[in-house]
Amino acid sequence: MISNSNIKLIKSLQQKKFRDELNLFVVEGEKMVQESLHWKSEYLVDLYHTIDFSINASNIDERKTNLISEKELKQISNLQTPNKALAVFRKWPNTSGKLPFYIALDGVQDPGNLGTIMRLADWFGVAKILCSKETVDCFNPKVVQATMGAIFRIEVEYVNLAETFEALELPIFGALLEGENIYSKSLNPNGILVLGNEGKGISEKIQTLIDFPISIPRFGEAESLNVSTAGAILLSEFFRKS
Amino acid sequence: MISNSNIKLIKSLQQKKFRDELNLFVVEGEKMVQESLHWKSEYLVDLYHTIDFSINASNIDERKTNLISEKELKQISNLQTPNKALAVFRKWPNTSGKLPFYIALDGVQDPGNLGTIMRLADWFGVAKILCSKETVDCFNPKVVQATMGAIFRIEVEYVNLAETFEALELPIFGALLEGENIYSKSLNPNGILVLGNEGKGISEKIQTLIDFPISIPRFGEAESLNVSTAGAILLSEFFRKS
Repeated sequence: MISNSNIKLIKSLQQKKFRDELNLFVVEGEKMVQESLHWKSEYLVDLYHTIDFSINASNIDERKTNLISEKELKQISNLQTPNKALAVFRKWPNTSGKLPFYIALDGVQDPGNLGTIMRLADWFGVAKILCSKETVDCFNPKVVQATMGAIFRIEVEYVNLAETFEALELPIFGALLEGENIYSKSLNPNGILVLGNEGKGISEKIQTLIDFPISIPRFGEAESLNVSTAGAILLSEFFRKS
Repeated sequence: MISNSNIKLIKSLQQKKFRDELNLFVVEGEKMVQESLHWKSEYLVDLYHTIDFSINASNIDERKTNLISEKELKQISNLQTPNKALAVFRKWPNTSGKLPFYIALDGVQDPGNLGTIMRLADWFGVAKILCSKETVDCFNPKVVQATMGAIFRIEVEYVNLAETFEALELPIFGALLEGENIYSKSLNPNGILVLGNEGKGISEKIQTLIDFPISIPRFGEAESLNVSTAGAILLSEFFRKS
């Protein structure tokens, strides 16, 4: 059973305004919810699930779990095909990352791209992503789903990039169309890799802060690469020798 | 102006059934339509555009161009934010690719992934993508948009993969979770790179045909990579020494 006020609350969390105000966000689907309970159960607020969902984690307070019908799940879901469970979480605080390697996103707009970059960061063991304030919200439901669980392990911080760069005192690498060939440069995961907006790239202000402009050589005719595939190739180059 | 029968025709092309039957498909948005006219004008069937769109190509038959209102564009568009122009194209025949390097997709389902992989292939100069019959249709409107123009340059062929592999007689590389470390293997763009379905990976039948199982080493905790970011990293490794 789910009350009308809770239906309204959950649906409001599709908007950034309410996620910020309430400090809550939503995780959906069998696999993602199991992962969320495994990694972040202490931040669980409410779990709604259908009868065919069984909780794998052992430390879940029963008062937080709610059995609902498929029809009720459909009412609160943001997915085209709702899948067994939906959980409301309190956002967790960041703990400090130890690896001296960060990804910085300067205005990435597409939720799928941010989610995919978080998943990449999780694969390569990057502890933290720094986002300019113009970057899409990492608790946006489409971002959460695209991370495939990386959101439970990767830190994302929204900052003034210029000020943060100054404070960190690390070498700054920027993905630009006219930079040094990444295949002939010796890269290792120490520094900050900046990726820019889908259409406009890295902003002028941030471009002036880049120590090492780097590029992926082009062998064919495409004008550019998608920011998440470019990020994949660059991360692979930073980590391949490590 | 646009007739009701043409509105109906264009909207029907959102479905594979009608794209196949009529041998037509749709390209949308200012930039994509300009690219389509530049690369494939000989296959243009009809161009619909608003008054603020100016045709850059010089060889466009005026009888094929139709000035329409924003409201009419909205009626025929498949985009959330229609953008100045929509073109109906005849599908063009494949010409034979010369590079002895192919990407083979075994059941990729997500239109964004196929479009992104086509864009990647275009960046690296891969001439042809072989798709299993279960792979999403490359003329699907979401695929066309995600290619960012690569669809006008990259060949995609839907085939029986097993039979085609046999006929091509090239070394077959497969992206698997337990293969040889790509960073220690000497790769060059001669052969076929197989990428699998988003959830299930490469099918059992195709796995038996792989000569060289290869993997991207994992440094962090993510369970897997998205197929298009994995493809990006692998293509980069194949081409980085060439």
